[in-house]
Amino acid sequence: MKDVNGLDLPTYDDVAAAHERIAPHIRRTEILTNQFLDEQTGATLFFKCENLQPPGAFKVRGACNAVFSLSDEAAARGVATHSSGNHALSLAYAAMRRGIPCNVVMPRTAPQAKKDTVIAYGGTITECEPSTTSREAVFAEVQAKTGADFVHPYNDPRVIAGQGTCSKEFIEQVADLDAVIAPIGGGGMISGTCLTLSELAPHVQIYAAEPEQADDAYRSFKAGHIIADDAPETIADGLKVPLKERTWHFVSNYVTDILTASEQEIIDAMKLSWKRLKQVIEPSCAVPLAVILKNPEVFAGKRVGVIITGGNVDLDRLPWIK
Amino acid sequence: MKDVNGLDLPTYDDVAAAHERIAPHIRRTEILTNQFLDEQTGATLFFKCENLQPPGAFKVRGACNAVFSLSDEAAARGVATHSSGNHALSLAYAAMRRGIPCNVVMPRTAPQAKKDTVIAYGGTITECEPSTTSREAVFAEVQAKTGADFVHPYNDPRVIAGQGTCSKEFIEQVADLDAVIAPIGGGGMISGTCLTLSELAPHVQIYAAEPEQADDAYRSFKAGHIIADDAPETIADGLKVPLKERTWHFVSNYVTDILTASEQEIIDAMKLSWKRLKQVIEPSCAVPLAVILKNPEVFAGKRVGVIITGGNVDLDRLPWIK
Repeated sequence: MKDVNGLDLPTYDDVAAAHERIAPHIRRTEILTNQFLDEQTGATLFFKCENLQPPGAFKVRGACNAVFSLSDEAAARGVATHSSGNHALSLAYAAMRRGIPCNVVMPRTAPQAKKDTVIAYGGTITECEPSTTSREAVFAEVQAKTGADFVHPYNDPRVIAGQGTCSKEFIEQVADLDAVIAPIGGGGMISGTCLTLSELAPHVQIYAAEPEQADDAYRSFKAGHIIADDAPETIADGLKVPLKERTWHFVSNYVTDILTASEQEIIDAMKLSWKRLKQVIEPSCAVPLAVILKNPEVFAGKRVGVIITGGNVDLDRLPWIK
Repeated sequence: MKDVNGLDLPTYDDVAAAHERIAPHIRRTEILTNQFLDEQTGATLFFKCENLQPPGAFKVRGACNAVFSLSDEAAARGVATHSSGNHALSLAYAAMRRGIPCNVVMPRTAPQAKKDTVIAYGGTITECEPSTTSREAVFAEVQAKTGADFVHPYNDPRVIAGQGTCSKEFIEQVADLDAVIAPIGGGGMISGTCLTLSELAPHVQIYAAEPEQADDAYRSFKAGHIIADDAPETIADGLKVPLKERTWHFVSNYVTDILTASEQEIIDAMKLSWKRLKQVIEPSCAVPLAVILKNPEVFAGKRVGVIITGGNVDLDRLPWIK
């Protein structure tokens, strides 16, 4: 951990420690390649399948790092968070693994599949309205009542260090990557990616992919300061939240570029991933493939690592079936 | 190859030779495990993901073995087959890899996704009615016209030896399996499994899983001779074809038991696989999980290898979305 202008930020040592700490609880996820998608994009794509994590999303890395770095005394009071979905169920999973309580505040509009999983892991859900304002207000009440340790979905150094373990594995598994791309919502995965790659492989370009309809990170990046939307609407429900000061530090200092895709482009890339990779992935994880297909001049000829961030989809409602 | 009562049957040496021959063209597929499904079944399950093969199905193994063992002279006349789907597109893929023509006879009711893939691989499709009788009649015309080498979807020693490479990898990848289970249609995968395991691991039990509504292999197994249905109806469209003399040899001599599942049980197991394994799999591949869930007394406490045979699904028509 280091102090940068009053912010406690994780260092690469925290990533290495996190990887050791969480190893018994996470999967070293598989890398898939696909000849068809390589031909379509002109790039050589490597897909890191975080949808295969036990709770179906990369967020298990940060959540486990936070939960397993608590003292026994703090752990006894449990953990709490607010989240649009995957962080919630990942924190519930991590808390279950440690045998401690977990309280989560979720938007009432979150996919039912994600709510069911939180409950199956023994978590307690309190619902809020689908806006950042409501979410933070309801959460303050919950935390005051329980005294639980707050594990923010992304603006937490333990979480950022945990997410950084994904790119650590990635460069151990695939040689000579030219670029890594991941979706951006609050920026936890992108920040962890920046943290790890800036230390271990500083020549690797880092791209963030964002829905046009929730493009606050894109506009922040271009403006040079954080711009937050209160309640953006996009099918990529994991990507509606704004950057915060810790993730902004990494995004503004290390990201090569942020690229955006429309709702239809996201849906098309999601369906294409299901058809070709045979992977069940969320709309959020399709944004990187959508922007790669949209910007061949950026990626063609490169070895590109694509982080497939999660696979918790409501299978009864697929966006291409009306 | 050996002669048994006038039948040319493959031996394990043919499997080993096939594995070397097809290695450049197939994927050594990943094995997935899943804590939730283990808890549901009381077994320890290992899923071999043949849905990740380039053409999305295990049939690429047998097809590549047949195509790449042809002499240059025979190869120049091309290959031909009839198939309910995955063998067709696997043969088209194999022929494309060798640069030779491929003619396939497919039922007009075969999933559009499979027809599209055959065409994308450069294959030529001739349609027939969805019955064994019509399929064989139309095929005879096509073969007479082209002089192509007939690669039967399963009753071919080259194909059976190729499918046997899947279980060879399986026991290399997972130690101490107690049982292996795969779906049964014509019996090609099960025959290859019998061939390999009877040589390398004869203590491993071999289970075949079949839809109740296309249970001709089950009835054959119980009766002690082949019983064929002309046009069974099941959502597991890969499993409608009957056993033939070569696959009957392996099924009758080496299979431990054949278990069946209803259409609803198959659909439920398919959806469960998508939800928990995050894998896009066909209805046919869900039959093994369906029978494991239905017969816990057979599988509980065992290390069970489950062959996920393919993932070529029409994503616009999912059986649980009306």
